[in-house]
Amino acid sequence: MIPVAKASRMTLRQLGAAATLKAMEAAGVEAADALYAANMLGDELQGQKQVAALIADEARLFGIEALQVQAATASGAAALRMAYLAVASGEAELALAVGAEKMSEGAAVPAITKSLDAEREVVTGATLISKNAELTRLYFERYAPPADALVHFPVNAHRNARHNPNALFRNRSVSPRAVRTARTIHPPLRLYDCSPICDGAAAVVLAPTDEARAFSPHPVRILASSVATDRFRVDDRDDPLALEAARLSAQKAFRQANVNRDDIDLFEVHDAFSIMTCLQLEAVGFRPPGEGWRLANERRIGLRGEIPITTMGGLKARGHPIGATALYQACEIVLQLTGHAGKCQVRGAEVGMMQSIGGAGTTVLTHVFGV
Amino acid sequence: MIPVAKASRMTLRQLGAAATLKAMEAAGVEAADALYAANMLGDELQGQKQVAALIADEARLFGIEALQVQAATASGAAALRMAYLAVASGEAELALAVGAEKMSEGAAVPAITKSLDAEREVVTGATLISKNAELTRLYFERYAPPADALVHFPVNAHRNARHNPNALFRNRSVSPRAVRTARTIHPPLRLYDCSPICDGAAAVVLAPTDEARAFSPHPVRILASSVATDRFRVDDRDDPLALEAARLSAQKAFRQANVNRDDIDLFEVHDAFSIMTCLQLEAVGFRPPGEGWRLANERRIGLRGEIPITTMGGLKARGHPIGATALYQACEIVLQLTGHAGKCQVRGAEVGMMQSIGGAGTTVLTHVFGV
Repeated sequence: MIPVAKASRMTLRQLGAAATLKAMEAAGVEAADALYAANMLGDELQGQKQVAALIADEARLFGIEALQVQAATASGAAALRMAYLAVASGEAELALAVGAEKMSEGAAVPAITKSLDAEREVVTGATLISKNAELTRLYFERYAPPADALVHFPVNAHRNARHNPNALFRNRSVSPRAVRTARTIHPPLRLYDCSPICDGAAAVVLAPTDEARAFSPHPVRILASSVATDRFRVDDRDDPLALEAARLSAQKAFRQANVNRDDIDLFEVHDAFSIMTCLQLEAVGFRPPGEGWRLANERRIGLRGEIPITTMGGLKARGHPIGATALYQACEIVLQLTGHAGKCQVRGAEVGMMQSIGGAGTTVLTHVFGV
Repeated sequence: MIPVAKASRMTLRQLGAAATLKAMEAAGVEAADALYAANMLGDELQGQKQVAALIADEARLFGIEALQVQAATASGAAALRMAYLAVASGEAELALAVGAEKMSEGAAVPAITKSLDAEREVVTGATLISKNAELTRLYFERYAPPADALVHFPVNAHRNARHNPNALFRNRSVSPRAVRTARTIHPPLRLYDCSPICDGAAAVVLAPTDEARAFSPHPVRILASSVATDRFRVDDRDDPLALEAARLSAQKAFRQANVNRDDIDLFEVHDAFSIMTCLQLEAVGFRPPGEGWRLANERRIGLRGEIPITTMGGLKARGHPIGATALYQACEIVLQLTGHAGKCQVRGAEVGMMQSIGGAGTTVLTHVFGV
C-alpha cells in the first residue's frame, strides 16, 4: 500500500508501479506472469487508457501480460478477481492485482457519475452523490430510525484510521457531534457521510496455494471470489434499498468459501457513503432490512464488536482512491489475518470478507479470505 | 455478429445486448454465468461506465456476473481472454464475451488517442494515426520497398468483405489504383491505409470443451489465449518496427496450442492501419523483417493463398468498431473452422489465429482456435 494522500506528488503510473514493486518485495517475488490493473478515472483525468500496460512499463516488468479491468467504483475488486481467475485457471503462477487512482487532477465527481445510466439517470441531473442522498432520504422515510442513526459508521471508521499509517485521515478523532454538524454536501448528506477524493495505489500478489507456501510460511487464502449485478438503474429495482447484487454475491461467496455469516471475523464494507454501509450490512444479512443502522455503535462494529467493519478506516477514513480501494481492502485483510494490523488488529481474525460496489449498487464483488 | 454500420440506429447498450442474445441463440443456451464486455470509448462518447452491467441489464440477464475489460484498441480480445480464464478456472460453465462500440457519436479520434502515453506521446501532438504514419514512413525509409508495397493489403481486405453480410463495406470492389490515389488522411497514410470509424457488436459463448459438445456437435476449441506487452511508448523500443508484443504473444500461443506457424490456416490480423498488418506478419514470423510487404498479393494472403488474412474483410473492410472488433474476428474464425464462411471460406481450415493490438503495439493478444 502507498499511503493515501489528498494530492500525491507521484503521477498515476508512479503510484501504480510503486505499489506493484512494494507488493512484489513484500511477497519475495522478482517476476510475475501477469498484471491486472484497476483504474477508474484515468481516461478522463489523465487522458490515459491501457493503464495496466503503463504501470507494467513503469515497473519495468517488460513483456508481461497486462490488462485493465473496469467496474466503475468497484474496479479494484475486478482486478483482484481477474488475477484470481488467471491463477485458478493455471494460466498464471504469479499474478499481480494492482489498483491506482489519482483523483486530485481534474474534475473527479462528473467522471465518477459515469457509473450511472447516462441515458436514463444522468440526463435527469443525477450524480452518484445525489443517488446516495436519495437512498438515504428514502431509508429515513421508510424506516424512521433516529436522526443520528448512521452517525457512528463514520465515527468508527475514523477511530480505526487513527492508527493506520496508510490512511488519509491519520491521527484525527471525529466526534459524533462533528459528524452531525458538519457542512452539508448534498442534502441530506453531510461531509462525513461521503468518502474523500484522494490519490493512492495498492497491490497484491497471487499464487496457487501450494506455490504460495514457497514464498510465505502463512499465506492468506482467497476462499471465495464472486460478482453479481442488479438492475443497472436504481429506479428499475423492485426495492431500491435492497442492494440485491450485494446479497447475491455474498451468497455465492459464502457457498464457495463454505462459510456462513457467523464465521466472518471482519468485513471491509464499501462505505463510500454511510447509507451504503447500512444497506450492505442488511443485504448480507447481518441485520434485517431497516435495522442495519442498529449496528452503528462501537460495541457492534468496533474492533472488538460483533462484526468489525472498516477496521483500518474504510473508504471514509483510510480513503477511497477508487481503482485502488479494493486492493487496500485486500491488503488490510491480509494484515488482519496474519496478525500484523497493529492497533487496528481484530484479535484472532481467521476469516475476512470484503465487498466493493460499482455505481449505486449495480455491480457488487465479494471476496472472502482465510488462513 | 450485428452488421457493422457507419452509424447504427441502435444505442450502445442495444448493440451489445443484441449481439449477446444472438450469440446465446446461436449457441442454444438460455442463461450464462458471466458476461465480460469490451467497450473502449463509451466513457467518452456515451458518458457511460460499467458497460458490461448495462449490456447484461438490457439483455435481461439479471443478477449475472458482469465485468468490463480494457486494453484500448485490443479490448475485445481482453474480454475474450477474461471469459476464457473464467471457464478454464471452473468459475463459469457458460461465459459470454461481448464487444460493442458506437463510434458515430462524438469525437472518436481524440478518444482513441488515449491509447498512447498521455505524458510523453500525446503532449508532443501525437495521435494513434500519426504514430502509424510515422511507422509507415520509417518502414519505407529503412527497407525501401516499392511505393505500392502495402497497397494489396486493403485490396485483399475489401475483396473478401464483398461477400460478408456483416461487413461495413459489402459489395464494393477497391482497385489498387483507388488505394494508391485515395485522399490523404495523414501523410503518408491515405484513406485505404486506415480502418473506418463505425458502430458494431459481436459476442461469443464459451463453455468447457466437454460441456460444449452438449450444445454443438462440432464446437470450436480455443487452443491458446495469450497476452504480451511491449515498452508502452514507441520511442522507448529498441526497434519501433519490431512489434515485440506481437512476437511474444504469438510465441506463447504457439507453445500453448502446440502448433507452429505452418499449422495456421488463416490469420485474422489487426489491420487498423496497413503498416500494422505488415509488421505483424513479420513479428509472427511469416516473413523476415522488411519483407512482410511481399505477402501483399492475392496468391499469398488471398483465400487460397499461403496464409489467408482478413478473410471476411478485416478491420479495414468489415470494419473496426473497436471494442467489438476481436469478437468479430472470433466469430469469423468460428465460421471458417465450421465451414460456414460462404464465399469467404478458406477450404479445409482447421486452425485459425487472431491478434489484437492495443495502441501502437503496446498490448497484443493472440488467440488460436482449432476444431
